[in-house]
Amino acid sequence: RYGYHGKVVRLMFCNISGCLTDGRVLMSGSGEDMVAINTKDTVGIQMLQSEEVEVVLVTSSVDLLNSVLVDKLAKRAGCEVAKVGEEPLKDLKLVLERKKLKWNQVAFMGNDKVDVSCLNLAGLSAVPSDAPIVATDAAKYTCRNVGGSGAVREFGEYILLQREKAKMKQDRIDTSSK
Amino acid sequence: RYGYHGKVVRLMFCNISGCLTDGRVLMSGSGEDMVAINTKDTVGIQMLQSEEVEVVLVTSSVDLLNSVLVDKLAKRAGCEVAKVGEEPLKDLKLVLERKKLKWNQVAFMGNDKVDVSCLNLAGLSAVPSDAPIVATDAAKYTCRNVGGSGAVREFGEYILLQREKAKMKQDRIDTSSK
Amino acid sequence: RYGYHGKVVRLMFCNISGCLTDGRVLMSGSGEDMVAINTKDTVGIQMLQSEEVEVVLVTSSVDLLNSVLVDKLAKRAGCEVAKVGEEPLKDLKLVLERKKLKWNQVAFMGNDKVDVSCLNLAGLSAVPSDAPIVATDAAKYTCRNVGGSGAVREFGEYILLQREKAKMKQDRIDTSSK
Amino acid sequence: RYGYHGKVVRLMFCNISGCLTDGRVLMSGSGEDMVAINTKDTVGIQMLQSEEVEVVLVTSSVDLLNSVLVDKLAKRAGCEVAKVGEEPLKDLKLVLERKKLKWNQVAFMGNDKVDVSCLNLAGLSAVPSDAPIVATDAAKYTCRNVGGSGAVREFGEYILLQREKAKMKQDRIDTSSK
Repeated sequence: RYGYHGKVVRLMFCNISGCLTDGRVLMSGSGEDMVAINTKDTVGIQMLQSEEVEVVLVTSSVDLLNSVLVDKLAKRAGCEVAKVGEEPLKDLKLVLERKKLKWNQVAFMGNDKVDVSCLNLAGLSAVPSDAPIVATDAAKYTCRNVGGSGAVREFGEYILLQREKAKMKQDRIDTSSK
Repeated sequence: RYGYHGKVVRLMFCNISGCLTDGRVLMSGSGEDMVAINTKDTVGIQMLQSEEVEVVLVTSSVDLLNSVLVDKLAKRAGCEVAKVGEEPLKDLKLVLERKKLKWNQVAFMGNDKVDVSCLNLAGLSAVPSDAPIVATDAAKYTCRNVGGSGAVREFGEYILLQREKAKMKQDRIDTSSK
Repeated sequence: RYGYHGKVVRLMFCNISGCLTDGRVLMSGSGEDMVAINTKDTVGIQMLQSEEVEVVLVTSSVDLLNSVLVDKLAKRAGCEVAKVGEEPLKDLKLVLERKKLKWNQVAFMGNDKVDVSCLNLAGLSAVPSDAPIVATDAAKYTCRNVGGSGAVREFGEYILLQREKAKMKQDRIDTSSK
Repeated sequence: RYGYHGKVVRLMFCNISGCLTDGRVLMSGSGEDMVAINTKDTVGIQMLQSEEVEVVLVTSSVDLLNSVLVDKLAKRAGCEVAKVGEEPLKDLKLVLERKKLKWNQVAFMGNDKVDVSCLNLAGLSAVPSDAPIVATDAAKYTCRNVGGSGAVREFGEYILLQREKAKMKQDRIDTSSK
């Protein structure tokens, strides 16, 4: 219902590794890998979804995550997944075309060098507080929380707050132009 | 034995996710989920129980915890569990009615938006130091410890200290009115 | 070889839960519990052993650790275990009698209320930096490290440093009395 | 292609325990051990490899890591492993001879007493921020990150930056001497 303003976020891309998780993968000699996700963050994802912001998780070929684990995480978080190669921008462009969305309608959360072009292009963008400096420099917002401990939820709240602000501004313009 | 003052805490509700745990759930592709609880906190729960404060763990439908894991945690912590929906207040009211207790006899530990009404109503209430601001604003006490690392135990000590203070005050009133 | 001074530490008691570990136990619905110990700390234990300080791990009945896991941890750390009840002092006294040692030859690392009497009695004593205040108040040394992340090793270095100092002092006395 | 300067890093030795991991090993009563490594660090290793710096992981006989787990970690990180005894210097010398490299072409990341001689000898050397003081004193660079959470990647960036600087300096010398 905010779509006609053309400026509000409709989709959030979120790196799994380092944003939804803290980047760590637990390994044993012969057993399955394990990673941790946080209820705080999945609640944040639900907040966005209930406000009509779609959340798409992003996983890259350099991540330590295998395909089965990625699918499990996505299912638990209730999100679609986009698997990207060494240039996430290229792959995510296709996702946006398919969904008929523009980069200014997108919020992007990343945490490394490969994410820089997307952090620059997206209408809103963020990194967890423990991201390497190259990513932090490109992001419009730096979370106070580290990856895997509420950074996704914090950015979710930020997105909804910006949307609320944009809407209030538009309402004032609508009112004063009557 | 403090019941006749009508003001002292007889029951503590405590969120599992984010209070007894740090909110994280470890997942593998096909294996069981794992969560961590801390001896510090289970010792704190035993302290409360030995001082006749019942501890009831609270788990919500949005938590990442399945029913089997919740039951295991409750068993290990030696507590009853209350499973709540999107409005914890509604479900916990029924628990209090069944136990013939009032909100001013209750200590509540929560860590998110859905907990705000309970944090407001309870005689004593607290959040871990890493709770979102919306919950922190509603709580009467903010722990120095984060969830899963002693926040439950810290609140337990706070509860017993408040009870001790209330009892000393009452003793002074009783004495001066003789 | 320092035994004739009668004042130097020959034995270190060390709580498993909260000192050698961070107090957390990872649980799943039906699988085995897991706890983490740190190479830093096991290296510290080896340092003490190679300087003829015996290390005995202590586990209490209120810990969340089952017997199989305790035995595994002790084996990996290369230590004997003392299983204590609600009054560690009582049980550890028997260990000392059996080993013909006095409390002033003992270093004790604990992290909770039940450890207070041992923290007071031992020649040297310490708590990790995240111990509850009641234990910290009784300890002669407070580690900069938290439990499970090098506190045991830090106390080990402290013990060896104190021993070195005591030895140097004794050497000066021996020299000046010639 | 920088080899003819004779001063630039061609190889990085990196301790697994405490550098690539945080030193912790998760154990259960009868199951397999688990350790965590971080995507941030494996991305850092790939950065070095793509710039023709070989990365060799180092594991010592006192580490809590069994052979199967070490091999798994090395495979996932895409590195060769050197297993060392109580004097890492002795064993790593052989590796360097085999690879026809000198210590001034080596970057070394360690975190304990046994690493001191290698930290001193290597052209570049670093410790994670949570290393014991004895190792920190010997290292040329102290990371801002702790072990297992980006320290390896941080040192990798440092190595590449130093190389870039050395190259620019050489270019200036080459230019001015024409």
